Amino acid sequence: MQDRVISAMDNPALVELTRGDRVESIHRGAIAVVDSKGVLRLSLGDVETPVFPRSSLKPIQALPLVESGAADAFSLTDEHIALACASHSGEPMHTERVTEWLTRLGLGKSDLACGAHAVRYEPIWHAMIARGERPTRIHNNCSGKHTGFLTVARHWDIATKGYEQVDHPVQQAVAAALRELSGISDLPWGVDGCAAPNFAVPLAGFAHALARLAMPDELPPRRARAARRIVSAMIAHPELVSGTGRACAVLIRSCSGKAAVKTGAEGVYAAIIPSLGMGVAIKIDDGAGRAAETVMASVLQSLGILGDDPAAHAILRAPIANTRGTIVGERRPTATLSEIRFG
Amino acid sequence: MQDRVISAMDNPALVELTRGDRVESIHRGAIAVVDSKGVLRLSLGDVETPVFPRSSLKPIQALPLVESGAADAFSLTDEHIALACASHSGEPMHTERVTEWLTRLGLGKSDLACGAHAVRYEPIWHAMIARGERPTRIHNNCSGKHTGFLTVARHWDIATKGYEQVDHPVQQAVAAALRELSGISDLPWGVDGCAAPNFAVPLAGFAHALARLAMPDELPPRRARAARRIVSAMIAHPELVSGTGRACAVLIRSCSGKAAVKTGAEGVYAAIIPSLGMGVAIKIDDGAGRAAETVMASVLQSLGILGDDPAAHAILRAPIANTRGTIVGERRPTATLSEIRFG
Repeated sequence: MQDRVISAMDNPALVELTRGDRVESIHRGAIAVVDSKGVLRLSLGDVETPVFPRSSLKPIQALPLVESGAADAFSLTDEHIALACASHSGEPMHTERVTEWLTRLGLGKSDLACGAHAVRYEPIWHAMIARGERPTRIHNNCSGKHTGFLTVARHWDIATKGYEQVDHPVQQAVAAALRELSGISDLPWGVDGCAAPNFAVPLAGFAHALARLAMPDELPPRRARAARRIVSAMIAHPELVSGTGRACAVLIRSCSGKAAVKTGAEGVYAAIIPSLGMGVAIKIDDGAGRAAETVMASVLQSLGILGDDPAAHAILRAPIANTRGTIVGERRPTATLSEIRFG
Repeated sequence: MQDRVISAMDNPALVELTRGDRVESIHRGAIAVVDSKGVLRLSLGDVETPVFPRSSLKPIQALPLVESGAADAFSLTDEHIALACASHSGEPMHTERVTEWLTRLGLGKSDLACGAHAVRYEPIWHAMIARGERPTRIHNNCSGKHTGFLTVARHWDIATKGYEQVDHPVQQAVAAALRELSGISDLPWGVDGCAAPNFAVPLAGFAHALARLAMPDELPPRRARAARRIVSAMIAHPELVSGTGRACAVLIRSCSGKAAVKTGAEGVYAAIIPSLGMGVAIKIDDGAGRAAETVMASVLQSLGILGDDPAAHAILRAPIANTRGTIVGERRPTATLSEIRFG
């Protein structure tokens, strides 16, 4: 534990926020970009100490759902697969599909192990407040992932109760997939915000796992097919993976089919880039999502796959407005980050 | 600007967040504790590069209101003075007093230069949403500060329009007070979230200014009286300075009259400690309020003035719960922070 703190001491400043002509705050972090052979194409900061990928692990957590045959057994579409990989905003496009999916399993919201939390998409949230409605577990941003876990348990005809326990076969299948893809055998774990286990892995190993999802040709055929389906589902349904206007949706759309990206709590961001056969794993030391978004946009730009759309470039360099709407500063890559070049 | 980034590279990790048995995120920062003579009693990290105090500047921004005689001319009570120093939650106790105060000046909410933003206190905010009400400028957390500025302009019988411009006499009076108290003549400025100017000052100079408010005996009598009134108003009305359940209210109450504390955006925290004649200024590099709160609680404990109440100690070491309410980690001081001792 202590080595995490010490090694992170050297992580470079990647993002800075200005006010007037001064830098007001800075965010440090580490970046690993790895190809499917495991070659580190970029290593900035500490990429060897395990970090929790949090929700950026979801594409790997969805592997058992597809490769077990559970997805096909329950006739799931790519929309369901995208939801299994989602940190969604609790919009009707998310909650209605999860509700129907649970019904398909013969289950209901009380079977979900995740708790309820506020809906992220403001128009829906405010409408619910106005109607006096409380959010349910289906509104939890991870409800698709949890329904995916339940689908595997149903398919295997094992207990659904306790599916969120680390020793449940579904979670052990996730751990096995992460071990095999990352080449990292020791996976410390903690409990995620949604009550599911989350496995810590070094950024370099995590990026390698993501690269193998991006370029799965050398994986066993069943896993390769599952990887292709998961990544294409994420790319096909950016808003199901996140929500209206969310950074993941903006960045996936901006990359025009070349990449799937996935955010995680506490400043993590992952990218799966089939067009380059690469994986990207980012961790901001202090856990700030605002910084992780700018770093991901900058890395995608350095890789030459970020589009020219203003929405993506407003993530790369984000104006900071005050409550009167006046621009008073900006969030931007530091020189260290913006000078990254790939050969 | 660049020197800010470089020097902050060496700021120590002060707060860490755990998940399971691992550290997940860390926050670095700097701390200055200074006495009224200007002696640095603690200097941790970079305390010499100017930083924006943001809302923690408010006790100094309130000085012209009191020392000009404006507060007395408009028969303001200590409740108004506390509101002038507040980043309030937009509760009725705040908005009703600001509304009445503006009326007393012959002004209204359209005279406030700050913009509207969401109300921070959830029960009130949700009730407003349910009624279809939009927040006004009076709900802006800085509306008391702005009404204080307007009060000075009215008292001086000068234009109220443009009171938020850096060259307006009210803002120049703020700058003069900060210069005189901090001993720092060069004050770069930027525009705060509420549209008022905010003056950047090194943490050491800022803490010195706060110490002189804490122990104002050697200040000119009018300023000394104003300082005593402002600090006692903050200590007497912790919830007017912040809001129900907010960290400032909890910490001021926990110190039982020994200290006033004030948060600022982007990870700033200030303390004025009359019982010790000291000032404390904290800046978290990455701007995280959660870290600034833990650092302030820890410094107050090291100074021997934090009480034993569970609410304050839940700021010092904060349990991290998931959406099911299970404790999965904690936010806590690093060894560097918890080992601080004052002679």
